Amino acid sequence: MTLPRIAIDAMGGDEGVRVMIEGAALARRRHDRFKFLLVGDEARIRKALETHPGMTEASEILHCDDVVGGDEKPTNALRRAKTTSMGLAVNAVKKGDAGAAVSAGNTGALMAMSKLALRTMPGIDRPALAALLPTLGESDVIMLDLGANRECDARNLVQFAIMGAAYSRIVTGRDKPRVRLLNIGSEETKGTEDLQDASAQLREARGLAMQFDGFLEADKINRGEVDVVVTDGFSGNIALKAIEGTARFVTDLLKNAFTSSLRSKIGFLVSRPATELLKHHLDPNNHNGAVFLGLNGVVVKSHGSANAAGVANAVAVAARLLEDKLIQRIAGDMTSLDEQQLGGKPVPRADSSAA
Amino acid sequence: MTLPRIAIDAMGGDEGVRVMIEGAALARRRHDRFKFLLVGDEARIRKALETHPGMTEASEILHCDDVVGGDEKPTNALRRAKTTSMGLAVNAVKKGDAGAAVSAGNTGALMAMSKLALRTMPGIDRPALAALLPTLGESDVIMLDLGANRECDARNLVQFAIMGAAYSRIVTGRDKPRVRLLNIGSEETKGTEDLQDASAQLREARGLAMQFDGFLEADKINRGEVDVVVTDGFSGNIALKAIEGTARFVTDLLKNAFTSSLRSKIGFLVSRPATELLKHHLDPNNHNGAVFLGLNGVVVKSHGSANAAGVANAVAVAARLLEDKLIQRIAGDMTSLDEQQLGGKPVPRADSSAA
Repeated sequence: MTLPRIAIDAMGGDEGVRVMIEGAALARRRHDRFKFLLVGDEARIRKALETHPGMTEASEILHCDDVVGGDEKPTNALRRAKTTSMGLAVNAVKKGDAGAAVSAGNTGALMAMSKLALRTMPGIDRPALAALLPTLGESDVIMLDLGANRECDARNLVQFAIMGAAYSRIVTGRDKPRVRLLNIGSEETKGTEDLQDASAQLREARGLAMQFDGFLEADKINRGEVDVVVTDGFSGNIALKAIEGTARFVTDLLKNAFTSSLRSKIGFLVSRPATELLKHHLDPNNHNGAVFLGLNGVVVKSHGSANAAGVANAVAVAARLLEDKLIQRIAGDMTSLDEQQLGGKPVPRADSSAA
Repeated sequence: MTLPRIAIDAMGGDEGVRVMIEGAALARRRHDRFKFLLVGDEARIRKALETHPGMTEASEILHCDDVVGGDEKPTNALRRAKTTSMGLAVNAVKKGDAGAAVSAGNTGALMAMSKLALRTMPGIDRPALAALLPTLGESDVIMLDLGANRECDARNLVQFAIMGAAYSRIVTGRDKPRVRLLNIGSEETKGTEDLQDASAQLREARGLAMQFDGFLEADKINRGEVDVVVTDGFSGNIALKAIEGTARFVTDLLKNAFTSSLRSKIGFLVSRPATELLKHHLDPNNHNGAVFLGLNGVVVKSHGSANAAGVANAVAVAARLLEDKLIQRIAGDMTSLDEQQLGGKPVPRADSSAA
């Protein structure tokens, strides 16, 4: 099987070309059938390729001079969709020149460009940003939305649940991933009306490839008891960053504690394999690659500060979603949902008071 | 100086009477001028007091048979404000029989009863639930609201900032605590209109006893760079629980790693002082005691699963807020804000679309 190639925005991210090319090369070392469309400054890309000889034959370069700025407003960046490395990488997916795009640039701009070029799938009102997080269980948990949509109504949340479950089936291999809605309590009466509506619709829907288990509080995200955590983009972003910040906080405390005395330092050296294991588990690079779900094409956002191993992970996520036909899976579930008209009731779009 | 006494709802919490009395006794061992009004089943309280002889002379018992259930709806509990241990403890503050109340019972019911009995302070529209969290810095950070108000407008957020700063001045000793609004980005254009309004008002206000530093993302809460994190109750609850869950997640991973091999086990034993330090820092009992701010009286919520040391902390929080005149401090700032009419502009109450 030949894999469609992956378009890489070589200019995005804090480190730029070198890390993006090195990441792609790393991913290719693990999966040697990968092909790439490298978008950006040709001279710099060629220079970066010098140290990765295998990459040259597997890659085509699409030159451009323009780059989306890290702090640029998405509306501003959108005007340069046809001239920037980010815009051209996304556009390659639209034109069929690539099967997926990976960028480490400005998240808002990438979302806006992806929406404009690829459009949302039939039945999906808004795309969502989804990421994998580590758990105490056997597989990662998927959380969405992480910031693409500040406010979401019940209908959005139901669609996110379907998109997240399709992604989780690929990641976990479960036929019916365990899906929950993030809320401030697990009782049915808790949270906003939109959360309660979404919960009722997911409970009633039949034949969806998921097991809906109701509400989840944020302290249970990592326990390994849930595969998909569905939330609005504001709460999801708060939860994601609180998790990232706390993981760093605890490891910083640990580092301080381990260097607080000679005895602690010796203990640290002896128990190094244990702390390395912890570090490996918590390293954000091992979970890099947030996906825009709900578009007619696969777009993966690599973290701006990811290292080459992180970029390689993001590239591998893109390849896997392509191979395992994420878009077709979501389309299948949407058809099933449409036929039921969400439990027989028409679902009007709620007003904007969703909170 | 005689301290006004503290009313203890002896019946709330997972462990009930024994832990509440033991906690109060522990607090009293550290501050022997504490006096208590112990509210609940007299026979069980007397039995629990047997093992704490010093407590008997410092305590009065207020007997009642009725207890608010952990899962009971607040509206239901409210009807029994005059017969339950929780209601009578709060009522003792209202009547001046106690200076503060501490309960480990149902949070929603405690909030409803406290609001009804004590009323909000002049100029405060809604009370908020505030708690202390550990940081990498020298002092704890205060976060509010943690779930008392699901949706908050700009005016609520400004009031929360004032209430949180007053609390922080007591905890940190700073004249102008560093205050920030929790948001999904630090740029001025990020987040909801209410967040942007609140930010503009806090920037414009003069003479407030705080230093307003703009927006904060959730991964920065524990870095020690901020003293007060202001947010709506939905996001605050998500952030708090994500932090608690992740701290537990990382320590669980660490425990697994340390028991994964003989070498790791030995390393763990050698470095025990370091891991004990970590455990101490992260133990939620050391940060127990969430405060309802904005009421005409001090009410402290102890975590339902807190142990005696945790209850002692909650009691100490109540005593400290009384001694350091929290309510008078908030009132002072509200007066200053009123005189400015929030930067000269009347502040209409926003509609309910706050998210």
